[in-house]
Amino acid sequence: MYELVKRLFPICRSITGNGVRETLKIIHEYIPIKIHEVPTGTKVFDWTVPKEWNIKNAYVEDENGKKIIDFKKTNLHVVGYSVPVNKVVSLSELQEHLYSLPEQPQAIPYVISYYQERWGFCIAHKDREKLKEGRYKVFIDSELKDGFLTYGELVIPGKSEKEVFFSTYVCHPSLTNNELSGPVVTTFLAKWILNRPRKYTHRIIFIPETIGSITYLSKNLKVMKKNMIAGFNVSCVGDDRVYSYLPTRNGNTYTDKVALNVLSFRHPDFIKYSFLEKGSDERQYNAPGVDLPVCCVMRSKYGTYPEYHTSLDNLDFVSPEGLLGSYDVLRECLILIEKNCKYKINCLCEPQLGKRGLYPTVSTKATPKIVRSMMNFIAYADGENDLIDISNRINVPAWKLHPIAAKLMKAGLLTVVQ
Amino acid sequence: MYELVKRLFPICRSITGNGVRETLKIIHEYIPIKIHEVPTGTKVFDWTVPKEWNIKNAYVEDENGKKIIDFKKTNLHVVGYSVPVNKVVSLSELQEHLYSLPEQPQAIPYVISYYQERWGFCIAHKDREKLKEGRYKVFIDSELKDGFLTYGELVIPGKSEKEVFFSTYVCHPSLTNNELSGPVVTTFLAKWILNRPRKYTHRIIFIPETIGSITYLSKNLKVMKKNMIAGFNVSCVGDDRVYSYLPTRNGNTYTDKVALNVLSFRHPDFIKYSFLEKGSDERQYNAPGVDLPVCCVMRSKYGTYPEYHTSLDNLDFVSPEGLLGSYDVLRECLILIEKNCKYKINCLCEPQLGKRGLYPTVSTKATPKIVRSMMNFIAYADGENDLIDISNRINVPAWKLHPIAAKLMKAGLLTVVQ
Amino acid sequence: MYELVKRLFPICRSITGNGVRETLKIIHEYIPIKIHEVPTGTKVFDWTVPKEWNIKNAYVEDENGKKIIDFKKTNLHVVGYSVPVNKVVSLSELQEHLYSLPEQPQAIPYVISYYQERWGFCIAHKDREKLKEGRYKVFIDSELKDGFLTYGELVIPGKSEKEVFFSTYVCHPSLTNNELSGPVVTTFLAKWILNRPRKYTHRIIFIPETIGSITYLSKNLKVMKKNMIAGFNVSCVGDDRVYSYLPTRNGNTYTDKVALNVLSFRHPDFIKYSFLEKGSDERQYNAPGVDLPVCCVMRSKYGTYPEYHTSLDNLDFVSPEGLLGSYDVLRECLILIEKNCKYKINCLCEPQLGKRGLYPTVSTKATPKIVRSMMNFIAYADGENDLIDISNRINVPAWKLHPIAAKLMKAGLLTVVQ
Repeated sequence: MYELVKRLFPICRSITGNGVRETLKIIHEYIPIKIHEVPTGTKVFDWTVPKEWNIKNAYVEDENGKKIIDFKKTNLHVVGYSVPVNKVVSLSELQEHLYSLPEQPQAIPYVISYYQERWGFCIAHKDREKLKEGRYKVFIDSELKDGFLTYGELVIPGKSEKEVFFSTYVCHPSLTNNELSGPVVTTFLAKWILNRPRKYTHRIIFIPETIGSITYLSKNLKVMKKNMIAGFNVSCVGDDRVYSYLPTRNGNTYTDKVALNVLSFRHPDFIKYSFLEKGSDERQYNAPGVDLPVCCVMRSKYGTYPEYHTSLDNLDFVSPEGLLGSYDVLRECLILIEKNCKYKINCLCEPQLGKRGLYPTVSTKATPKIVRSMMNFIAYADGENDLIDISNRINVPAWKLHPIAAKLMKAGLLTVVQ
Repeated sequence: MYELVKRLFPICRSITGNGVRETLKIIHEYIPIKIHEVPTGTKVFDWTVPKEWNIKNAYVEDENGKKIIDFKKTNLHVVGYSVPVNKVVSLSELQEHLYSLPEQPQAIPYVISYYQERWGFCIAHKDREKLKEGRYKVFIDSELKDGFLTYGELVIPGKSEKEVFFSTYVCHPSLTNNELSGPVVTTFLAKWILNRPRKYTHRIIFIPETIGSITYLSKNLKVMKKNMIAGFNVSCVGDDRVYSYLPTRNGNTYTDKVALNVLSFRHPDFIKYSFLEKGSDERQYNAPGVDLPVCCVMRSKYGTYPEYHTSLDNLDFVSPEGLLGSYDVLRECLILIEKNCKYKINCLCEPQLGKRGLYPTVSTKATPKIVRSMMNFIAYADGENDLIDISNRINVPAWKLHPIAAKLMKAGLLTVVQ
Repeated sequence: MYELVKRLFPICRSITGNGVRETLKIIHEYIPIKIHEVPTGTKVFDWTVPKEWNIKNAYVEDENGKKIIDFKKTNLHVVGYSVPVNKVVSLSELQEHLYSLPEQPQAIPYVISYYQERWGFCIAHKDREKLKEGRYKVFIDSELKDGFLTYGELVIPGKSEKEVFFSTYVCHPSLTNNELSGPVVTTFLAKWILNRPRKYTHRIIFIPETIGSITYLSKNLKVMKKNMIAGFNVSCVGDDRVYSYLPTRNGNTYTDKVALNVLSFRHPDFIKYSFLEKGSDERQYNAPGVDLPVCCVMRSKYGTYPEYHTSLDNLDFVSPEGLLGSYDVLRECLILIEKNCKYKINCLCEPQLGKRGLYPTVSTKATPKIVRSMMNFIAYADGENDLIDISNRINVPAWKLHPIAAKLMKAGLLTVVQ
């Protein structure tokens, strides 16, 4: 996964334009996503698909012709959606178009201006402080014109039309945790899903943030409301720090139940945020009237780590281990969704496990502990509790209950109720 | 308000009699209350309106003709509802009729004997200890005879017949926090209500405690049960100490919701008592079968402060600031009740605030915090949550949400559902 | 009660056989239990009634004819349900049939092998370590053959067919807390129930653990499900340590309500276990589909104390005081069940207690505390709360509310609603 991050890193993505197209094309080498193009001006709920933005080059040159800011070094140097400019300005005029972070003097900030036309450059504060009085040539070879919003979609059919949903965004330039970790982990999850039998249909989308999810919802809300049983916004899943969780709006959906069970047993030190700290596409999926059960399972959450939205969210910030850990957690959520059901024990009172070789035949002081998980599973397999309820109730991870349930099924002691 | 407290302080009030009439007459100078008189002997639920008690003078004189206890110095010296007496007694007989507080030797206690005929005097314990053997003349010029129970009532009509209720008591003699603070703050709240447009009807009563509320309920229970949406027993609202709250019987009424929201944001250090520590007219309003949603928002709660029911609950104990603080909190409860409603956002997904000037057009690292309250308000304006629910959910005081709701209404993005 | 424990102690009980019969015969001297015999081979839900086991003698003799293990010293020396044996074995073969506790070298463990035929001896680890190489005669004069499972039952009719249930087990040999304390306390509770008027029917059974409760349920489940309102598995009620509680499966039955109220006020330091730590017949009563409201009120819970299932759970471990304390708690649960009902105050607003001599006629600062329990009882006697709800709500033990309710009933102020 880390190799794919490296390959996608240099591309200058924005919410529209060739950066998105190039990114989706590479992802298409891994999984058969379908590419959709939605024209500029299309009404999507309260919003309108904006003009398409593309950029070829950009720099700021001092009086000596030295490029003191150069888009070719990192695409973060240009304010996203900057209009073209080509003129000579004074330092003070230039300053009005510069963005930097005094408290992080080494970092180039990531700045965008989607819905008002302007131009600007981003620069490390330590470099900004070195700028001398004088004339500067500012040059941005960009184009903002009618075009398309581009997104990728993959619907993997299952036995049931009920859907599990993954959404991830492809709209930030050279940023890793808060951009590439999402589509990369999602791509590999899709590969894994494609290669195994499945009960549920899986809907997976690669979209620009906000306008992309709104656009997608405006075209697919009805079917999504009808079929979605659980959904994940995949964002910030690449670094090595602690796991974190942002629940759905009311925090009580099936998605929350699944994700909290997995995180609680796999990574009990995970941070649980409030929905009030939302910030990515879960905002749209959980909006009143939309009400889709979409949560975020993350490593370092957007907005909480100092590298966020700066040039420090780079290839050093994410790691193969960080990506793999997130992949594992999300895959375990998928396995749990696929395997979860309500069980009912077939006999009244406890079954006699001994005659079936499921219980030691000598009773000593230690006996009860040996088979405790199985006995506790049986005690709550009443046809009302599903596997996650039982797991929570008896404090045993779901992955340890799957083999117990299998043994009891084989012995004819257990029935799947639903 | 403090001036009115001073003016009412010297009057010798009891649950019936001219002290109550004089008090209500002064309040009538401020607000147009209607005075009601209920005859002695009237059956009110399990109770009977008692005889009317009036007192002109009272003292205890020693052998030298020196008045060692004098009603004219403070009306607390006489046990409330004392029958007339005029005789000479020994010290030991006198002692049987004296009440003092050994643990508060400076304080004259407040003692009453409503429902059994007796006479007695209250005295500071330090003075009691100075009494010498000898003969004492005891003289009480009081009268206990058929008459009336007197109370004041003001119903201020609103657009709706649904009512907000205020009850306060006028039956203690020269006590300030646990007596005069209540009618004074309530008088000024009534003045404020009279001078503004209002949605709800407001019912405001000035009554003697216990027998007064029982009498009032016996005449008005039906309409009150039909119309009351929130109610406040106004007592102990004059000192400068911490705010406190006594909930309704089950603690889950609309009144509790309103009062707890206001107190939590304005005075988060307020003390929350249990209903088990009830002691004023909320006992009657919350009685089984009555079940009116009446709470107490207070400063130092009756029964909890050492000055309570003694001569130390005097003009030094309450303050203009103490009264004003309580007035402000109760007024804010009224404003919240008037303004509260359920809101629903008009579009699916988040509205585009930028194009309406409600969102900054440059997105930087700090953007999300700037508009967080508005975005969180929108996230929970789902037609199910009312303004108080949203306030509690997003942890923003209701008074900061009123202008946000107004802005969104103006932009056509919000609808009032109920 | 302690005398009865001493009398029953030497008997070699097992889940079937003459030890159980002898035990029940002695209990029958105290209370008129009916003895039932269920034949070997009877199908009971998923189980089958096993062969009957009886033993006359057993020992291990060394080469010098010295009995190094002798059943006559304590019946714990033989593994329960051992098949007969009579041969000479080497030390190493003997070792395969010995059970001891290295971590408790003084204690003889209690070991059984109900559902697989084997033979074995239990020995203190300190004695096992002294065994020398050589030949040993092993002798067990036992018999395992078709016979019966024996249990005792006493149904004490009440005015209502609704039942309170007690279950206790008689299947362990010379063990006291985890065996004899249960039947002995239950016997004396039954004596007490027999000698007083009663509202409810009481069903009391003395059974072998597990197979006995399963057998009993297979014959009586329908009537028990129809009539049982509360049930107690009486086990481990004889030592002097802290009280403990094991709730029903979901912890929210009427039994839990009763037992938690009594324990909270009588022994607020009691240990509350999770149902996951179940281990006795409550497992069967609470099994899915059985769902009878049976809890355990205990002293030191089975499995939690070091003496458990060893020769140290002996006549020194339990005490007359320990037994009596448990008896008192369970009897108080019975009294509460008999007396509990919903009360409703007969008048609107507070009743006038003063005119009925239920309230002091002089009101002083201290008055409210004196009658607080009565006033709080009245405040919640709304026809919805039962006595236990009121007790929990106003934090006054139920046994202090009985006389208050009686006073108010006598004064005509209170009605029993249900």
